[in-house]
Amino acid sequence: MVEKRKPIPVGEAVRKVMEYARPGLKEMVPLECAYGRFLAEDLAADHEVPSFDRSPYDGFAIRAEDTLQASSENPATFEVVGVIGAGSVFTETVGPYQAVRIMTGAQIPQDCDAVVMLELTNERRDHKKTYIEIKRMFKKGDNISFQGEDVRKGEILAKRGTYISPGITALLATFGYNEVPVAKKPVIGVLATGSELLDVNEPLEAGKIRNSNAYMILSQIQRAGGEPVYFGKLNDDLESCISAVANALSKVDMLITTGGVSVGDFDYLPAIYEHLGASVLFNKVAMRPGSVTTVARYEHKLLFGLSGNPSACYVGFELFVHPAVRTYSFNDKPHLLKEEAILEEDFPKPNPFTRFVRANLSYFDGRLIVKPSGFDKSSAVSSLAEANALIVLPGGTRGYAKGMTVDVLLLEDNRGSEWPWENIVPSYK
Amino acid sequence: MVEKRKPIPVGEAVRKVMEYARPGLKEMVPLECAYGRFLAEDLAADHEVPSFDRSPYDGFAIRAEDTLQASSENPATFEVVGVIGAGSVFTETVGPYQAVRIMTGAQIPQDCDAVVMLELTNERRDHKKTYIEIKRMFKKGDNISFQGEDVRKGEILAKRGTYISPGITALLATFGYNEVPVAKKPVIGVLATGSELLDVNEPLEAGKIRNSNAYMILSQIQRAGGEPVYFGKLNDDLESCISAVANALSKVDMLITTGGVSVGDFDYLPAIYEHLGASVLFNKVAMRPGSVTTVARYEHKLLFGLSGNPSACYVGFELFVHPAVRTYSFNDKPHLLKEEAILEEDFPKPNPFTRFVRANLSYFDGRLIVKPSGFDKSSAVSSLAEANALIVLPGGTRGYAKGMTVDVLLLEDNRGSEWPWENIVPSYK
Repeated sequence: MVEKRKPIPVGEAVRKVMEYARPGLKEMVPLECAYGRFLAEDLAADHEVPSFDRSPYDGFAIRAEDTLQASSENPATFEVVGVIGAGSVFTETVGPYQAVRIMTGAQIPQDCDAVVMLELTNERRDHKKTYIEIKRMFKKGDNISFQGEDVRKGEILAKRGTYISPGITALLATFGYNEVPVAKKPVIGVLATGSELLDVNEPLEAGKIRNSNAYMILSQIQRAGGEPVYFGKLNDDLESCISAVANALSKVDMLITTGGVSVGDFDYLPAIYEHLGASVLFNKVAMRPGSVTTVARYEHKLLFGLSGNPSACYVGFELFVHPAVRTYSFNDKPHLLKEEAILEEDFPKPNPFTRFVRANLSYFDGRLIVKPSGFDKSSAVSSLAEANALIVLPGGTRGYAKGMTVDVLLLEDNRGSEWPWENIVPSYK
Repeated sequence: MVEKRKPIPVGEAVRKVMEYARPGLKEMVPLECAYGRFLAEDLAADHEVPSFDRSPYDGFAIRAEDTLQASSENPATFEVVGVIGAGSVFTETVGPYQAVRIMTGAQIPQDCDAVVMLELTNERRDHKKTYIEIKRMFKKGDNISFQGEDVRKGEILAKRGTYISPGITALLATFGYNEVPVAKKPVIGVLATGSELLDVNEPLEAGKIRNSNAYMILSQIQRAGGEPVYFGKLNDDLESCISAVANALSKVDMLITTGGVSVGDFDYLPAIYEHLGASVLFNKVAMRPGSVTTVARYEHKLLFGLSGNPSACYVGFELFVHPAVRTYSFNDKPHLLKEEAILEEDFPKPNPFTRFVRANLSYFDGRLIVKPSGFDKSSAVSSLAEANALIVLPGGTRGYAKGMTVDVLLLEDNRGSEWPWENIVPSYK
């Protein structure tokens, strides 16, 4: 009755998932809805920025050569021959000792090659004409924002798969992306299993717990960049489970089940996979928590069977589902960002398998520091509240002491890693 | 015609804004919509977790005392007298050398005090009865998740104003928050000014640029946690500007205008404020970029007049609007998180005023490192693409060299600072 399962190292398990993780589709969204999405195409500059020489200040456009002799004792006088508001173009000639009043951002007149800031001039009116005095020399090019100094035409400003931040939004607007090609969010179904589960709105009962995993995963899907669909709770009858999974699968890009992946008598997941004809990529991973994580593939869709234990479920999502979501979003650093941090507390437990400790990462004196964010059991839920990182302790290591350097995976960082699993010691049972 | 403005230090300017920043309203949202919002109330545990002693494994619940003599040579034999699925409660008596098959998460029977993992038992059937053999001693409490070990009743698990992460979602579900009290998002209006501005979908014209600031700010509002409303572009007629601003103000909690805050002839903002009866908190800040940032107050609403230069506009938002949004969201660390980082590149410019350099922060060997993210001019837009931090260089300092430690404000971090302005050298002109 007890199925023997062969645990594989975490890196190998992730690699098996990534073999079937595929880029998704592109869709167009209005610019104002693009924040937080991922670019589906390279963002290239189709013109220079600025696209014309412009004034960075309010002031006067002049010919620099006319200031060669100017000093406080001997100011040069210029006749103001026009005004250029931002957005306007001054097409007339500007001759010697003539100046044009120019606003911030306005185009420099053809004949001018320097701008004098308003504060540095004295203005006077005389016979309906306006004059300014300039008390020092200006060089050709002074106070001009030159065409192309910010962005060169043809430059790739952001690659396909880039997270659309406010800065990327500014560039999209600059280059006329009224509609933005973004990665379609993968639709990810969630099905909870477990006869112990109460709905969130139900009162507690003896022996039962409220279903926290499903809602936690809906949030994790959103954080990763997917679109969650909750299909509710499976009941305890195998036939209806099979049809519920088949129905959900037909409506999503990936499917997550929680619970039912243990080796106990009441776990239907292997039977469901078999009935559907899904091929199991692995059903045991040499890690804690989440060793019973199962991933299967049905046609081109991935089915993630995560543990019913909150911490195990959480970790399983971040290691296996997150990179699939980011790959779907064209991102080439789909895994959690891996960095080093100093452990702030002893962690005396030995680690027969690679261990992922829910942790709180912060900074001190310009360094990353990290401590377990609470009670470390796969069933724990409190430790998830302040978790913004996972400490990675390789299998085969003994306990860790305060002050040691450990690897951490960052949960709230959109930069990601290409492949964080190189130097994690594999561990077999 | 040139208005004299008195610049105030950044910290003083932020403090003036914070005097009028107010917590907002609470609203209830379904749990599945709570991710990324801010808690409007403390999240307290109204019961213990686990709420009963439960089994962390599939196995058998036993009385530990019956294993006192058990060894591989001399296994103890137990009669299996029942099965407990997760969610079920076993109410019968368990006597000496009796065991109950128990599933992960199920409640421990009253008479039992240890769980033996399935893998460690041998099962055999005899005359329709099932027996297991146990080959070692177990202590009272072995493999039991005790009531309350994860969360104590009455514990405050997350404070009002906490960002709702997936971990917080799990706790909300555990404690029955089918609907979650969250901070209502402040509605923030955006009005662009500038006759040089083209709409994003318009082709480029001589002397004009596309309106990138408004869309950038819509993204920044979303990142901060607000709800943006774009009111379009003001035109060049004072009367219609006044009525557009008044109309927008009536529909929002805060209002942002971009451009029109310079000292040039064509800037209407001071006139608009005066006409509305808004009181100006400041109109010049001793900082670069964004020195002409103006903030005013009309009744209990803040009006942010940000620069028309993209980088200056960006910085102005993050320093002044972001903390107002977070305060509205009940967050008690409303400012950008301030940390120290090592400068990766020389930054030779002197800093007559506090300078905020758009920068890219990353990690190396467990340390924060930072470099300017591109062209450093207030008009630059390219440097915003990779900006995830602002380097803060105090006014009155000369250039900085590679390897020096600098202060940085983190743009993509939801932890925040209570008050990051203590040790920034103020600078007056």
